[in-house]
Amino acid sequence: MQEALLALTKYWTDRGCMMVQPFNTEVGAGTLNPATVLRVLGPEPWRVAYVEPSVRPDDARYGQNPNRLQTHTQFQVILKPDPGNPQELYLGSLKALGIDVEANDVRFVEDNWASPALGAWGLGWEVWLNGLEITQFTYFQQAGGMTLDPVSVEITYGVERIMMALQGVDHFKDIAYAPGISYGEAFGQAEYEMSRYYLDDADVATNRRLFEDYAAEAERQLEQRLPVPAHYFVLKCSHTFNVLDSRGAVSTTERAKAFGRMRGLARRVAKLWAERREELGHPLGLAELPAATALPSTLPTTDEPATLLFEIGTEELPAAEVTKTAEAVRQSITTRLGGTRLEHGEVRAHATPRRVVITVDAVAPREADAEKTVKGPRASAAFDADGNPTKAAQGFARGQGIDPSELQKIDVNGVEHVGVIKTEIGRTAVEVLSEQLAQVVGELRADKNMRWNDPKLSFTRPVRWLVALLGDVEIPVAVSSLASGRETRVHRTAAAPTVRVPGADGYLDFLAQHGIVADPVARREQIVAAAAELAASVDGVVEGEDALLEEITNLVEQPNALLGSFEESYLELPSEILTTVMRKHQRYLPVRAADGSLRPKFVAVANGDCDPDVVRAGNEAVLRARYEDAAFFWRADLEVSPQDMKAGLDKLAFEERLGSMADRAKRIAGIALALGAELSTEDGETLARAAELAKFDLASQMVVELTSLAGVMAREYALRAGETPAVATALFEMELPRTAGGTLPSTVPGAVLSLADRLDLLVGLFGVGANPTGSSDPFGLRRAALGAIGVLRGIPALNGVKLGAALELAAEQFRAQGVDIPEQALTDAREFVLRRFELHLIDAGNPHQFVGAVLPLADSPAAADRSLAELTRRAGDASFGELVAALQRVRRIVPADTAPSLNTEHLKEPAERAVLDALDDARDALPAEAPLSVFVDVAEVLTAPINTFFDDVMVMAEDPDVRAARLGLLASISDFAGRQLDWQALGTELTPTR
Amino acid sequence: MQEALLALTKYWTDRGCMMVQPFNTEVGAGTLNPATVLRVLGPEPWRVAYVEPSVRPDDARYGQNPNRLQTHTQFQVILKPDPGNPQELYLGSLKALGIDVEANDVRFVEDNWASPALGAWGLGWEVWLNGLEITQFTYFQQAGGMTLDPVSVEITYGVERIMMALQGVDHFKDIAYAPGISYGEAFGQAEYEMSRYYLDDADVATNRRLFEDYAAEAERQLEQRLPVPAHYFVLKCSHTFNVLDSRGAVSTTERAKAFGRMRGLARRVAKLWAERREELGHPLGLAELPAATALPSTLPTTDEPATLLFEIGTEELPAAEVTKTAEAVRQSITTRLGGTRLEHGEVRAHATPRRVVITVDAVAPREADAEKTVKGPRASAAFDADGNPTKAAQGFARGQGIDPSELQKIDVNGVEHVGVIKTEIGRTAVEVLSEQLAQVVGELRADKNMRWNDPKLSFTRPVRWLVALLGDVEIPVAVSSLASGRETRVHRTAAAPTVRVPGADGYLDFLAQHGIVADPVARREQIVAAAAELAASVDGVVEGEDALLEEITNLVEQPNALLGSFEESYLELPSEILTTVMRKHQRYLPVRAADGSLRPKFVAVANGDCDPDVVRAGNEAVLRARYEDAAFFWRADLEVSPQDMKAGLDKLAFEERLGSMADRAKRIAGIALALGAELSTEDGETLARAAELAKFDLASQMVVELTSLAGVMAREYALRAGETPAVATALFEMELPRTAGGTLPSTVPGAVLSLADRLDLLVGLFGVGANPTGSSDPFGLRRAALGAIGVLRGIPALNGVKLGAALELAAEQFRAQGVDIPEQALTDAREFVLRRFELHLIDAGNPHQFVGAVLPLADSPAAADRSLAELTRRAGDASFGELVAALQRVRRIVPADTAPSLNTEHLKEPAERAVLDALDDARDALPAEAPLSVFVDVAEVLTAPINTFFDDVMVMAEDPDVRAARLGLLASISDFAGRQLDWQALGTELTPTR
Repeated sequence: MQEALLALTKYWTDRGCMMVQPFNTEVGAGTLNPATVLRVLGPEPWRVAYVEPSVRPDDARYGQNPNRLQTHTQFQVILKPDPGNPQELYLGSLKALGIDVEANDVRFVEDNWASPALGAWGLGWEVWLNGLEITQFTYFQQAGGMTLDPVSVEITYGVERIMMALQGVDHFKDIAYAPGISYGEAFGQAEYEMSRYYLDDADVATNRRLFEDYAAEAERQLEQRLPVPAHYFVLKCSHTFNVLDSRGAVSTTERAKAFGRMRGLARRVAKLWAERREELGHPLGLAELPAATALPSTLPTTDEPATLLFEIGTEELPAAEVTKTAEAVRQSITTRLGGTRLEHGEVRAHATPRRVVITVDAVAPREADAEKTVKGPRASAAFDADGNPTKAAQGFARGQGIDPSELQKIDVNGVEHVGVIKTEIGRTAVEVLSEQLAQVVGELRADKNMRWNDPKLSFTRPVRWLVALLGDVEIPVAVSSLASGRETRVHRTAAAPTVRVPGADGYLDFLAQHGIVADPVARREQIVAAAAELAASVDGVVEGEDALLEEITNLVEQPNALLGSFEESYLELPSEILTTVMRKHQRYLPVRAADGSLRPKFVAVANGDCDPDVVRAGNEAVLRARYEDAAFFWRADLEVSPQDMKAGLDKLAFEERLGSMADRAKRIAGIALALGAELSTEDGETLARAAELAKFDLASQMVVELTSLAGVMAREYALRAGETPAVATALFEMELPRTAGGTLPSTVPGAVLSLADRLDLLVGLFGVGANPTGSSDPFGLRRAALGAIGVLRGIPALNGVKLGAALELAAEQFRAQGVDIPEQALTDAREFVLRRFELHLIDAGNPHQFVGAVLPLADSPAAADRSLAELTRRAGDASFGELVAALQRVRRIVPADTAPSLNTEHLKEPAERAVLDALDDARDALPAEAPLSVFVDVAEVLTAPINTFFDDVMVMAEDPDVRAARLGLLASISDFAGRQLDWQALGTELTPTR
Repeated sequence: MQEALLALTKYWTDRGCMMVQPFNTEVGAGTLNPATVLRVLGPEPWRVAYVEPSVRPDDARYGQNPNRLQTHTQFQVILKPDPGNPQELYLGSLKALGIDVEANDVRFVEDNWASPALGAWGLGWEVWLNGLEITQFTYFQQAGGMTLDPVSVEITYGVERIMMALQGVDHFKDIAYAPGISYGEAFGQAEYEMSRYYLDDADVATNRRLFEDYAAEAERQLEQRLPVPAHYFVLKCSHTFNVLDSRGAVSTTERAKAFGRMRGLARRVAKLWAERREELGHPLGLAELPAATALPSTLPTTDEPATLLFEIGTEELPAAEVTKTAEAVRQSITTRLGGTRLEHGEVRAHATPRRVVITVDAVAPREADAEKTVKGPRASAAFDADGNPTKAAQGFARGQGIDPSELQKIDVNGVEHVGVIKTEIGRTAVEVLSEQLAQVVGELRADKNMRWNDPKLSFTRPVRWLVALLGDVEIPVAVSSLASGRETRVHRTAAAPTVRVPGADGYLDFLAQHGIVADPVARREQIVAAAAELAASVDGVVEGEDALLEEITNLVEQPNALLGSFEESYLELPSEILTTVMRKHQRYLPVRAADGSLRPKFVAVANGDCDPDVVRAGNEAVLRARYEDAAFFWRADLEVSPQDMKAGLDKLAFEERLGSMADRAKRIAGIALALGAELSTEDGETLARAAELAKFDLASQMVVELTSLAGVMAREYALRAGETPAVATALFEMELPRTAGGTLPSTVPGAVLSLADRLDLLVGLFGVGANPTGSSDPFGLRRAALGAIGVLRGIPALNGVKLGAALELAAEQFRAQGVDIPEQALTDAREFVLRRFELHLIDAGNPHQFVGAVLPLADSPAAADRSLAELTRRAGDASFGELVAALQRVRRIVPADTAPSLNTEHLKEPAERAVLDALDDARDALPAEAPLSVFVDVAEVLTAPINTFFDDVMVMAEDPDVRAARLGLLASISDFAGRQLDWQALGTELTPTR
């Protein structure tokens, strides 16, 4: 291992990095070394490389876990500014480590890094070596709450992992550290003893005192304007906090307080450091970014319609952005070309993680010419009495570059003006495209955007090259520091990673010759086919993995599917664990037998050519390590009863102002018991027990590690602890639905808990003002709202639950815990849920008028559903249409504040009597709580009398009493019908056209 | 600089060292990293190399001092066990750093390392590169209070210093750290800010609390038997203590307490670590040391007398041991050969730092044969009545391997025995020498001894080779793992560092051909001559540097004197500073002008051939840096008034139980004022002021750095602060005499202070039982005793001071400070001083009888001196001899407890009367306090009457009254004379032979 550290040091120092030493106080990561976290601030250049033994008390395992250490070795590199080719430099470092990057599958998989405690974030990747995460690669965007300019590239190697992979060992202790000495021999005792300290023996009172002392000392040094010692003490705070945490001594409140304090200090340190560097005149100078490129003074031209090829070359895009970006670019180009007079054929987009390829058929060589009329002064003001041009006309003519004699008379909305009709000569295609394509690149945006070494551009990952060809003519495109060309980049491991593109036509085939499948549809088909074939070879199938397939498709440029195996013994673990690990961590496709059971196999999809045996072995080793971890958690968790485990919820933070996860579980139980007050004895007992254990598995090691297994593990652990299957199921189902439209609970106790869970979330976060804003929804309130709606609609036993009342129940639980929930928050929460419901119904294809009409009922979503169904059923029904029209007519004429009344004294006209009688009949015929279908059947008797009434009677009679009586009658009808629907919202959708 | 760190790492890892990281909590030195201080314990092998940024708050200088940093970079290597050639390996590492070890002067200069706080020590060297200390090289003997077995070699490079030398820069900030980035640019801000923290801004209360918390946590981890986390907290304690210290917040008591606590913890950590490693079964295995060598089964022989050459090859001996070792080996061989029957000529010894060369002329080829009589049973018991041998005789014969018939009769003290006379055949010279020389090596010892990789040997530095030749025949000598041969080692930088020795004759010439001057006398002459010549070339001389010349002679094998220069501007500093730096730090010979003033020149003596320009430039740079430091201190000190500086004595430890240096200064002042109560007004005023400032310069930066300048700096600073020259002189003189026999104070105030200083030291340390034992005299009490005697004898104004009374004065000062001084301690202290006086007088050549005779007067050493002088003067004087004999005769017969009495009633005999009258006359004639000369003149009247009395009178008369009267008379004489001398002690030295 030490050779590896030396090789990396040599590699990076040869590339201009300064070598520094690990920091001499405990740090959790190399990032915290001032050589990173302070030096990335400000405008000075900085290149540094160092080893950093990173101390993570929470990862202490007494040296027993093969992959976890309380101190692991990071190798950290900072390149400031981004050198423009950091990925290529990084791959070079892997070669320096002796890794054959051609034989192995090295990939950059989206991983964004954020440390709220440091006020820091960046975008980048985890680098995979045959599925093993060996490096964190980040474009550092912010630190200490300050936006970084220039941006730094941070490369953090996980050295033990790399060594385990390179040396093919299964336990860190077996790494050959130095000739003749293993990692375990060198560091095993310290690993054990420091684990003991962190997990068992650190004195809590002492460490609490240390935390306070360190924080106070940091404060003092900040006051003295000394960021360096202040930073030391912030780090000491942080380490001490981690010690307390690993000792299980940090309550939720303490955690929040401590984080707040550390964050505040870290920000002040950063700010002060930046100020001090400025005061010192930036001793290292100012970093320089690439200069802007310029277009050539003359542009080439074309003669014939030709294909446009425009490729935007990027570093690996997040899988989810690949398709979106392709579509956005396609639309942008389509729109922009639409704004020109350049004729063209179809616009097509294809994309891989590293490129968006746009082709446009038959782009004309130039725009058509166009006439353009320029309006001058009114004719009457353009010539004086003698017919000579006035000063105004002369001025206009001069402005247009013509002689006044050339002014023409033109008609502008019937008024005669002078003016000029000019012919606008169409620009060449190259000129148009050069301008438009540049703007397309400049306007690229994704959900999360970042900056790199370009002075102006911003996108989800760096844009590194552009290819723009019209036929075989290069279109010069200049965007900030980027200039287009005809060189594209293929696999980084290719003999020639950069190749010249002959022309726009047949570009996808050209790429294919270089092993790149640019068409996502083709890539996906290749993957599906290969996976099926591989699975079939072991009597298995790959099924139901659409989302994963979508992701995998956008993780590679050239799919290379491999079949891997794992030890059958792991099949003893619950299959959800196995598949979660495969999907979530590794993006492997699980292979199942015909009966749906898991086979000890998986399909991994590598990128491009590589040595299949090497890559397979690597992927298998990663999975084995992951499963070993999972098995470790599984066994450890099984030794703790659900009750005991639940006690651990005290230590899990939920939201600072809303207490711990234990508080939340208690509230959920309270809500559930209130909602389920009238359940059957059996369901009631199940609910009571499940409510008692609610969320206990969140404190299990497995769920702490794999949060998506919440509920799954509750079920498994509950069953094994002797709980009834019904209780186990309820605990599982309380986490359902997991996604919008996901499976709903199937049992009543499960449904009640699920609803209670979501109500608690909604009320709590609205209660503290943590409403979702824009695209930010960190607590998943949108999903919670839809989940609540889903349960209310989908579980018959809960159809009767009213949303408003249920939210109020939840609020009571908070209030019982001393958390104030303002009424307005409840109103907002209810409105939020209803809005989600509305959108959901519209997204489901319901006419928005129908949705609007049933919305007043949505406090009981099931009722709204029923009415909506009825509306849909009656949509073509003419008599229903007549009824709607009549009721809308009534509603239109009645002022909103009119009280219903039936003043028979003043309603003497036959038309009035007819309406009165029909209303009486309908009222009598309508059962209480009748659904819309019954109402419509009953209410149809009103249609004719209403229409006759409006034909025969003038509502706004001069006699105020008569007028009042008539309005009262109509208001009574409106009131009677209004309980069913918002009839006005239906608009003319159902109204017969007359 | 980073290339250097990488080069060292590569060099040592290529040689089997494991690379570890710097420790992740602050350490003061690489030694404290557990990779050293714990791993050197126990029997496991360990080879490690690492960088260690070493934090020394006390060295913080805001980055302003060119050579001092609060964090400097060590490169640390541990080789366990000693590989046998660590110096050669080390020189290889210098080559790896690009240092031309042939052109440069690389030397190993004695430097022994001890850390009482760690319970650790070792012997070794500082390695000099052209006079610059670049490395600490230590054979680690003990750590954590545990004796190390095997011994580790510790090599600690001071990287900044090496880089400054290699890059030729004068300030650490100017070191090129990495391409394009200087040390100052990389670390300047941290250096400034951490200096601010350590010197100004660290919160004292917080750090005190941290110290306690860390210590308690260390305790707890020890109780849990976790040495690793315990060690962490000991280190944190230590760093925190250093922070408090640099903030000036540690009182003497606190310091002692803190050190005691840390020492105790460190020892427990070490012990526990060793135990734990044993419990773990010594995971790294057991280190192996070289096996013992064996002698060949047959030894060669010689035919003719031949020269013996025996060379003991060592690593660089301490200069002070070179001559002593040569003499000890010469004596040992002489004695041993004397114990054999091997004829030989003169035994000669020569020595250099790396070898002791013994030659013995004309060693006979074998011992002479010898006859040996073996005594058997008495003849009477050897034969029975029949004349047959008894069983006893048979048994004896059998035991001697002869037939009973061969028994001879022998006379043993007149008794006839049987026996056998055997001829003992002389052994060959080779056999004798092989045995004896081995024992010489096995018994080598010095003042301080150490162990290395040899399983049995012990000496001041490792013995690495032996050459033993008799003529040209090899004498096999086997001592533990060493075997002799005929290969010697010459300069390590020679083309062939190992050469074959042709024969014993002419060996010194042979060595000379290889550039080694083995004869110290010749080396010294070469140095003196070369220095004189070089000095003369700049009109200078080198004078009065005997001790330094002696040392230099034993620092080189081949002197190579060079003349160097320094900037004249430094001559503005007091010359003592300049010469102290030259001598003490650099072993340079100062060059003076004819008037004794310093010239800006020096003579440095390199070892062996080298590039004189390179070596001169290096030595000049070192001196410049040292002078720059000194100038820095000088300027800084001058900004502080003596009074203010004196306040700093509070912070300086003296002896734990005796308070701080401030307490000591206060006591000295008290003693001095008491002693000087009757001085002249002028002297009294001078004394009062000087006593007030006593020792103030110990708190100056200069004296903290160069302790031997104590007194010198007091004088300089006092003068510049406007004190009178008399006060300045007194402050200077209170530190005199600096050595046994050194210059005494010349002024009365100076002498009083000097005496007070020494009295305080003696009384204090005897008071707390810290009496010198064996060769251990850490506080220099022997020197103090001689100093006190010197002042009492040499300064007339103090001649009247009585030692006992003066010690009592000192004790009173302690008691006033609450320190109990037992009466026995005072008695012991007085006895100790008198014993030193006695030895001193004897060493000065006085007959021990004279010395013994005056000893009773020595409470006033000047009086004893006078009497001694009188004795010496009268030595040949017959009448004095008669008086002595008479007085001794009187003293002999009078029992010790006889009271003087003159009972005239019973003293009627003429002889009695004559004595009585003579005594009366003498008493009348003797003035009070008369010196011995007067006494003798007066007392001579007694000689004849006493002799007559003894001739005529029987003292022991039968009448008890008469007897008592006679004894009383004699007792009166004895009493009268006994106040002058211990006459008995004179023995027969002066008594006429009769």
